[in-house]
Parts: sequence; C-alpha cells; structure tokens
Amino acid sequence: MAKEITSREQDYSQWYNDIVLKSGLADYTAVRGCMVIKPYGFALWENMRDTLDKKFKETGHQNAYFPLFIPKSFLSKEAAHVEGFAKECAVVTHYRLMNDPDGGGIVVDPNAKLEEELIVRPTSETIIWNSYKTWIQSYRDLPLLINQWANVVRWEMRTRLFLRTAEFLWQEGHTAHATAQEAIDETKLILDIYADFVENYMALPVIKGVKTPNERFAGAVDTYCIEALMQDGKALQAGTSHFLGQNFAKAFDVKFSDKDNKLEYVWATSWGVSTRLVGALVMAHSDDEGLILPPKIAPIQVVIVPIYKGDEQLAMISEKADIIVKELKALGISVKYDKSENSRPGWKFAEYEMKGVPVRVAIGARDLEKNLVEVARRDTKEKTSVDINGISEYIKTLLEDIQLNIYNKAKQYRDDHITKVDTWDEFVNILDNKAGFVSAHWDGSAETEDKIKELTKATIRCIPLNNLQEEGKCILTGKASTQRVLFARAY
Amino acid sequence: MAKEITSREQDYSQWYNDIVLKSGLADYTAVRGCMVIKPYGFALWENMRDTLDKKFKETGHQNAYFPLFIPKSFLSKEAAHVEGFAKECAVVTHYRLMNDPDGGGIVVDPNAKLEEELIVRPTSETIIWNSYKTWIQSYRDLPLLINQWANVVRWEMRTRLFLRTAEFLWQEGHTAHATAQEAIDETKLILDIYADFVENYMALPVIKGVKTPNERFAGAVDTYCIEALMQDGKALQAGTSHFLGQNFAKAFDVKFSDKDNKLEYVWATSWGVSTRLVGALVMAHSDDEGLILPPKIAPIQVVIVPIYKGDEQLAMISEKADIIVKELKALGISVKYDKSENSRPGWKFAEYEMKGVPVRVAIGARDLEKNLVEVARRDTKEKTSVDINGISEYIKTLLEDIQLNIYNKAKQYRDDHITKVDTWDEFVNILDNKAGFVSAHWDGSAETEDKIKELTKATIRCIPLNNLQEEGKCILTGKASTQRVLFARAY
Repeated sequence: MAKEITSREQDYSQWYNDIVLKSGLADYTAVRGCMVIKPYGFALWENMRDTLDKKFKETGHQNAYFPLFIPKSFLSKEAAHVEGFAKECAVVTHYRLMNDPDGGGIVVDPNAKLEEELIVRPTSETIIWNSYKTWIQSYRDLPLLINQWANVVRWEMRTRLFLRTAEFLWQEGHTAHATAQEAIDETKLILDIYADFVENYMALPVIKGVKTPNERFAGAVDTYCIEALMQDGKALQAGTSHFLGQNFAKAFDVKFSDKDNKLEYVWATSWGVSTRLVGALVMAHSDDEGLILPPKIAPIQVVIVPIYKGDEQLAMISEKADIIVKELKALGISVKYDKSENSRPGWKFAEYEMKGVPVRVAIGARDLEKNLVEVARRDTKEKTSVDINGISEYIKTLLEDIQLNIYNKAKQYRDDHITKVDTWDEFVNILDNKAGFVSAHWDGSAETEDKIKELTKATIRCIPLNNLQEEGKCILTGKASTQRVLFARAY
Repeated sequence: MAKEITSREQDYSQWYNDIVLKSGLADYTAVRGCMVIKPYGFALWENMRDTLDKKFKETGHQNAYFPLFIPKSFLSKEAAHVEGFAKECAVVTHYRLMNDPDGGGIVVDPNAKLEEELIVRPTSETIIWNSYKTWIQSYRDLPLLINQWANVVRWEMRTRLFLRTAEFLWQEGHTAHATAQEAIDETKLILDIYADFVENYMALPVIKGVKTPNERFAGAVDTYCIEALMQDGKALQAGTSHFLGQNFAKAFDVKFSDKDNKLEYVWATSWGVSTRLVGALVMAHSDDEGLILPPKIAPIQVVIVPIYKGDEQLAMISEKADIIVKELKALGISVKYDKSENSRPGWKFAEYEMKGVPVRVAIGARDLEKNLVEVARRDTKEKTSVDINGISEYIKTLLEDIQLNIYNKAKQYRDDHITKVDTWDEFVNILDNKAGFVSAHWDGSAETEDKIKELTKATIRCIPLNNLQEEGKCILTGKASTQRVLFARAY
C-alpha cells in the first residue's frame, strides 16, 4: 500500500489527494465539486463534531435547524453580504420534472418555474435573522444562542477534497445580544473554543487574530480567526468568529425593547468551522506512509493484529487479545482487534499506518510465551516490546504522549516558520524559499494589501490578538506602520 | 398559555399546529413548505437521532455523507424509481447570480446554466449506488452497511409541520449484500430496530407489516413498514425498510466476484425514518394542555419550580433544589431548576405543561418546613406530596412509570381501534364513525385497492407480518381472499 502514495517532496498536492483517497476518508463523485465523506472520514468528523458540540452546549448554546433554501431577495438585504455571497450559488429555479414529450427521458417542467428563485444556502445569516425578527421582542428573549450543523453550498470553480468543495458540512452559530459588548464577548468566547479544540484535540497550534477589512466576512464589523500552518508552509484559516454589529438586525428590522421599554436594534455574531478542518488535519500531521491522527479524535485509537500460524495459535492469541480489548475499552480507549483472515499481517500493518491509527499492538505466538507484545506508535514509528501485564495503562500513557508529540512537532515547525522581515526583498525571498508566516509592517491600507497579494499571492492572514505595537515602515510602500501583521500564502 | 390551544374536539388539525408552535418545537419560515426546527424541537430530535444512531452502530452500520445533488439523468436509471421520484423535486439549473444590468437587484446569470440540471436529493439510492459501483469489487467488500443523516427535499404541494414538509431531516440506510437472504435479513433487522425504538422510546405501539405493491417504495421488491395510530384514528407510517433486490445494482452495474470468482449483481436494502416521527409523537400522546413527552426522549425530564416570597425563602429553597438537581443528574436524569424571576409559578406550570416535561417538582417554603415537595406528573396530572429524603429515587421510578403509562394508554387506544369487518357497509361505517385500523379481506388486486381508496380515502396500511391465513371474501368485490389486511385513513 505505502508505495502507492506520492511523496510530499515529489508532489505535495498529489500526496494530499493520495492520502485522503487511499486512507478511505473521502472519494470523488459524479457531481462536480461534491465529494462523498466515506465511513472512516465521517467517523473522524463525528468525533470532531461531537467534541465541539459539547463545548457549545456547555457554554449555553442550543442547536436548531433552519431551511436549506434562501429566497433570492433575502441575500440583497444586507449590502455587504450580497457582495460577498450572491455570486457562485446553486440556484433552484423549478420544482418539477416531467417526461419529455419528445421521448428524451425526463426534463424540467417549464410550467413549474418558481416565482422567486431559491438559493441553496451558502451561509444562513439572512434566513435566520428573518426568523429572529419574530422571535425577539424583549430583552427577556436575549441572548439568543443558537447553532446549527448543516450542509452549505458555494459553487467554487476549483475544488479540492475537504479543503474546498462545492458542498461542505459545517456548524454555524448565530447569536443575538442586547449590547455590543456582549456580542463581542461571545465572538471571543467562540474563538477561544475553536482555538482550544484545534490545539488540544487536533494537535494543531493556531494563531488567534483579527482579519483586515479586506478579508472580513461579508456583513461583519470584525472577523476574528484562527490560522494554522501546513507542512508546505502555507497557512490555512481554521475557523472564524464574526462580530456583526447591528448590520443584520437593521437589514431584517430586528429590534427589542430594553428594560426601560426603549426599542433598540439587536447585536449579532456568527461563527463557523467546517469539514475543511479534516483537510487541515491531514495536511498538518501526515507523512509519506499515510495519515497521522491525534489520538483524541482518531476513530480507532489502537489496533491489535495477531501474528500466527494455524488455528491453535490464533485461538491462544485471541484469548489474550480479547482481554486487552476489554481492558482498553474500560479505560475509554477505542480499539479494534483485526483477526480477519483475508489479509496478512504485513498488509494490515501498512493499512493501519495508512489510516493513521495511533497505536498498533502486534501479538505473536513466540512473544506470547515470554508474555510480551510489540507496541508500535504511528507518529514516530518506534516499536517496543511490552509486558502484557499493565499493557492497557502503558497504552493509555502512550496515547497521551503521542497526542502531545504530534502537537509539539507541529508547533516546532510553525514556530520555525514565523519569520520577521523588514524589507521587500527579504519578504519575497522568504515567501519563495522558506514559506510560512512572514511578520512584516504594513501601512494599513487595503490598496497596499491588494498590491502585495497581486505581486506575491500572499495575503494578510491576521493581525494577531494582543499584537505588539511598534513603529516601523511598510515593506511595500515604506509608509509609517504601528504594528507587524502576519502574511502568508494560504489555502 | 393553555387557553390558547385549540381543543382536539374543536379542531384536531389546529390543535396539532397550536401545540407544535406554542411548545416551541418548530416555526414556519419565509420559504414555502420549509419549517425551522426550534431548539426545543431539535433537542427532542437529537435524542431520537442519537438513540437510533447507537442502535445502528451496535449492529455494524457506519455513517457516511453523500452529495446533496443528484444529476438528473441518475434518476432515470432505475425504471420504477424514476416514476416515484422524478416528479416534485427542487431543480438546480444555474450556478451564479449577478447584478441586474437594468438595476433590478440580483438576478440569475443566464450564462451560468448547468449543462445537466441537478436535483436536490429526494432520497439517495441513485447517487449512492453510483459510488458503490467503484467501492464493491469482491465478496470481501460485502456486506457494506452504510447510513447517512441528511436533509432531503420533496416538493409537496400540501405541507404540515413535521408531518409533511418540503425539506425534512432523516436517516437513510443503504446496504449491499452478497445474497438475497442476507439483504432480506438486514431489512427485517432494521424493521425490528425501528419498532423497538418507536415502542420503547417513543412509547408508541406499532404494527409491523409489508406494503402492497401499490404502496411500495419506488424501486423496491418489498417494503416493510411499521404503522402507528394517532388519536384521531388516522394511521401514520412511522418507518420503512426496503428490500431492493438487485434493481439498483443492475441500474448502476454493481457486480462483485464471489468466492468462486464468478461475477454477480449485488443485493440491496434501504431504510429510513425522518423528523416526521416528531409529528407522530405529538399527535399520539399530547392533550389539550400541550405536549406529553415520554421520559426516555424528553429534552428535560424534570423541572423544579420554586414557590417563594422574597430572597430569603428563595435562598432556602434553592439550597434544597440544588441538592435534588445534583442527585438527579447523578442518576442520569436531565433536570432544569427554573428560578427565573421573570415569570410567576403559575405561568411556569403552564409553560412546562405545554412543553410536556414529564415531571414537575414544586418546592414551597411552607412544605419545606415539613420536608415535603409537590411532585406532579404530566401524563395523568396527578400531584403527590413527597418527602425530600429519597426524592430522586422516587422520581426515577416515577419516570419509568410514566414511560410505561404513556405506552399503555396509546396501546389501549390502538387495540380498541382495530376493528374486524366482513361487509362493505360495516367497512364504511367503521371508517366514518370509529376510525382506526380496519381489518378486512381484500382480493389482492391493485385495482380493488385503488377503487377502495377512491371510494373511502382508506389505503391498505400493511399486511401484518405472520398474518393469520384464513379464507374469506373481499369486502368490495366478494372475490376469494386468503387473509385480512389492515386498512385505514392515514397521514
């Protein structure tokens, strides 16, 4: 199996596709830009989803479900929003098919044209705020803290498995508050939840920051984000949390009466992460043999493979394996004992390496006589002979160690790839020859930002939170600047 | 609050809508036929979903996610399927919007017309079997046991909250097998899971049966179903499980090589339940004061309401309430202590009655002196003074009792509403004056079935599994019949 993966060095982009396809995370479909998330990929997404969902609920959020379709006119109601989202959308124009009277199979019934076209949601602010209008009357109805897990569609021209697909799965939070400060606090609370999740579960260090006006969500007053770094030195936006001010409340006329019975517009936030995170996970940690998954979100944390000749040996090994499985499960560890006879141990080893299972336990008949098993960790590929007594506690500690090690490795790489530069030549040189984040002064204008993007394909990923204020000169224009921002080429 | 609900006697249909809207389960939206599932309704659906999901996984099924869109031509590939589903569909014809050159807001870009229209999935057999074609090569790839939780769209002309909406949420299982028998066993396994869930969690008795050819899923060889009875005597199909034979394998050319290396078409099943079950739940158990929810799936099982004057009393009550909350949570019981000061106890009582919370505990200052609280059960509205010592165990038993009582009440009603008839006059009389299931002989022809439907609006809900074989005469035609079938008017 392993030989079938293109190496990172040879073709990073192909390496990524190979891993996603061959580890069974996803597959292409007959529908342009739409993928199928296969069972192994979906189990991974479920672990990610459930972890986040728990955090949302612990902080007072409730799930709901709003319609897939948005009337076309809704998109126009918020001026900036329409610019950002009323572009590449799937548009439903008809509601019926019929047999072709000329015998050409089934065709769209021309008499079943919708009066107003429906847009398959690219994001749900508009349809949700149209409901909030009837749900919110008084300060007693606030805060309204709602999240939904849903599919959305953006008709991207160039798609990539997980990273950019026409349809993707995500969660979108939409909250309503009585004051600007409450809404800003909510935006930051969510950013912290995202950062905690990506760092401590996905083992991927992130930089928290705020977007420049150019990169803001269409309709937001401020967009907060977490930015991660992939192994090829490109940045990836891992989640965004938007302070929407009163923009959507005004667009949909959502007012509440405060304690003094005065009518005020409501303050809003929205925030989301998507199946894109699965792509980030693959790109950040994997190697040329396949996936490397952090134990905390791996669908299978431990796989046990018997090495045997004949039924007698298998029975003896299985007896021990069943005990280990039981012990591990009691510790809350997910484990698979693969005694399938369809394939040999070597094939299984490669297969589970490909799938990124954090720990592999091989039980051989000869080792067993000495009460030993072989434990291999996926991240470093180290193998150790371990006594069966206490094996489950050993594995528990090992999983924690692997989680930490994957994070530390990614953090080391990321930290090594934040480069301060003070001149244009250095800037271009680093982008071309080292990549990663480039910390540089910028004059604060959208024009300069656009120009830099045009010249280098690098964008401002974020202005880090609690950024150091220092005097400097813009790398492009030489104009005065008060702080460095983080540039990078990005996914 | 309670006064605002229309009574069942007055207008059953309006009673249902009132409960759904006022208990906060769902709301209408600006999109025709599409509803929003509000947080309380979604929490209920989550409990139902999670319970089923666990059962699917325990029986070896895995979740995946397939595209929302289906190429129009796919629907035509299975002859019967196209008849059933290529009708009222949402059709995506364009992929871009643009600013109206004449200044009329945003319009569909006529240059962005899709070469082939995409259908928003009404069900996913076709897109899934198109993937299975590449996933299945050998008997080693079988069985393939996949489920997905997804939204689907059927452009229904007449919609009702939960029961029939243009978009709804559901799960759809799609499995592939090496033999017909295995597929049939799977179909029945799922039917049993559905029946167990609906009876033991939703507290709703069902009849397991098989559909007549007329009522079969479009593309199935056999459709198994569970049928429930609502309080107005109408039947409701609560879940279906289809044996698809080799129809979809042939339509999408999905073959596997068996152990002898011979190529065979794969055998298939599909099965689903939807948010329609929420509607069934409401209709089956609720009364004129609001929802009645079975404890096993209620979002809140117990609510505690303090009855007090002044902060001192509240503090004293809250101290006790916090202990009870802790005890209940330790027993795995979900509980809400509502000490909000925005509304009075009487309002809260009505509100939680409306929401169908199974158990209400009222703690008053005077009762507390005697170490007593008042426990009210939603199903019978009985109130009891209970000693605080041992209250949590009391409530635990009470919840079990409520679960059983709700089921028994529904079962009693259902059993009282299965009427055997042997003549046409009796048949019509029962349908019009008693309703419920009517057990009658039928000559087995689709023609007679259609005629009966035309004359009475009653359909054959199912031929019960393990049906008694007995000689008789068709109620309409008088022709010979070998068994009774269950007729009813249905949702």
